[in-house]
Amino acid sequence: MTKSPAIILVRPQMGENIGAAARAMLNFGLTDMRVVAPRDGWPNPKAVAMASGAGRVLDEARVAESVAEAADQCDFLFATTARARDMKKDAYNPEEAMKMARKMGGQGRRVGILFGPERTGLENDDVARAQAVVTVPVNPEFPSLNLAQCVLLMGYEWSRGLADAAPPPETAPDHATVIEVERLADHWEERLETSGFFFPPEKAPHMKRQFRNFWSRMPVSRSDVQLLHGALRQLVRRPGG
Amino acid sequence: MTKSPAIILVRPQMGENIGAAARAMLNFGLTDMRVVAPRDGWPNPKAVAMASGAGRVLDEARVAESVAEAADQCDFLFATTARARDMKKDAYNPEEAMKMARKMGGQGRRVGILFGPERTGLENDDVARAQAVVTVPVNPEFPSLNLAQCVLLMGYEWSRGLADAAPPPETAPDHATVIEVERLADHWEERLETSGFFFPPEKAPHMKRQFRNFWSRMPVSRSDVQLLHGALRQLVRRPGG
Repeated sequence: MTKSPAIILVRPQMGENIGAAARAMLNFGLTDMRVVAPRDGWPNPKAVAMASGAGRVLDEARVAESVAEAADQCDFLFATTARARDMKKDAYNPEEAMKMARKMGGQGRRVGILFGPERTGLENDDVARAQAVVTVPVNPEFPSLNLAQCVLLMGYEWSRGLADAAPPPETAPDHATVIEVERLADHWEERLETSGFFFPPEKAPHMKRQFRNFWSRMPVSRSDVQLLHGALRQLVRRPGG
Repeated sequence: MTKSPAIILVRPQMGENIGAAARAMLNFGLTDMRVVAPRDGWPNPKAVAMASGAGRVLDEARVAESVAEAADQCDFLFATTARARDMKKDAYNPEEAMKMARKMGGQGRRVGILFGPERTGLENDDVARAQAVVTVPVNPEFPSLNLAQCVLLMGYEWSRGLADAAPPPETAPDHATVIEVERLADHWEERLETSGFFFPPEKAPHMKRQFRNFWSRMPVSRSDVQLLHGALRQLVRRPGG
């Protein structure tokens, strides 16, 4: 059983953002929230209101006074920062970081991810406690990701790689067989021939080939084939015929 | 120059979400927003307030009355849906979809991504206009992504692979645009209507949607479109008519 990362909100300010972070976590199956010195105390009614269906993440959240206390059972900490800092620390993008987190989680190690306060981000002293830094590569001209969005992207990357283990079920259309497509093309050719479409005669071979090419390129399903046979029959039906 | 995808918000309800979507777009360098029939009209003061630094995305947004109008210069449409639907359409996760979008963008093709209204998501008739479906793999027990979060994840996936997306030199066929395919589907619908194909009347909407789905799924080229218009006209021509 792979251990999921803990989401550690450091000195969060707005209850709404805490609630939105809880939702973002649960969207991707994360449930271990830890809150360090929330500005407006705990529990936070605005957080609860915003979390709605993800209230249980808040109910089970651990509140701590310091980063060290919140992270006490973690084996590895990532610090999220908006930009690389001169911390002489390895920096990763979310994909790389969550790949590492899954690997460590699979070894039974607990990873924590630190998220800073909304306005200022993590302080250098917080970042100093982390083993590595993770930064979302955003548009440098508009880098303003909010707290819950940052949590969302980490959760997304965490779960994205988990899902890769089991290939996602794909809604495969019921592809028509080659012979079914061939018959459909035959039907079209007959009807078009009868209607005088292949004119003038010297161009007919090219036009027919173009139609064959068309049908063989199209990813038609069995129900498409039936639909098109039916449509074709109906189109050429003469009134009262 | 890789063409960036257009973000098409279909009948969005809350101005705040439109503004948040604009921010999410700009976070990842996307600027082409199109808004179909916004519930509260346009411009929307709440959207402007929420967008703050991303206001120019709203200023430059195109407002349209229908999906077809909003997508008129798109070459390929993705429809975002919360779950796979029985639409017989290829379904992708955001990574796969945005990889395709980068490839098409590198060939100079314009991709559009449809996002549905907050409460209900896209209607089947909207999805029917798209060539493929994209679904974010969320926790099935808590799948509630909001509009701006969904835009954020698409933007993230778009920009994530952009660095290593060298435009592959490919002999791209002269793909028909969305509006050309739309007109072809219209033509078919008219002719089939006239011929009495959509019978009985209570089944007509389903049959029409099946045809829309068919055309939007097919990778038709411009010359295919011309060929099929011509074939259709010829098929229904009455002898001596």
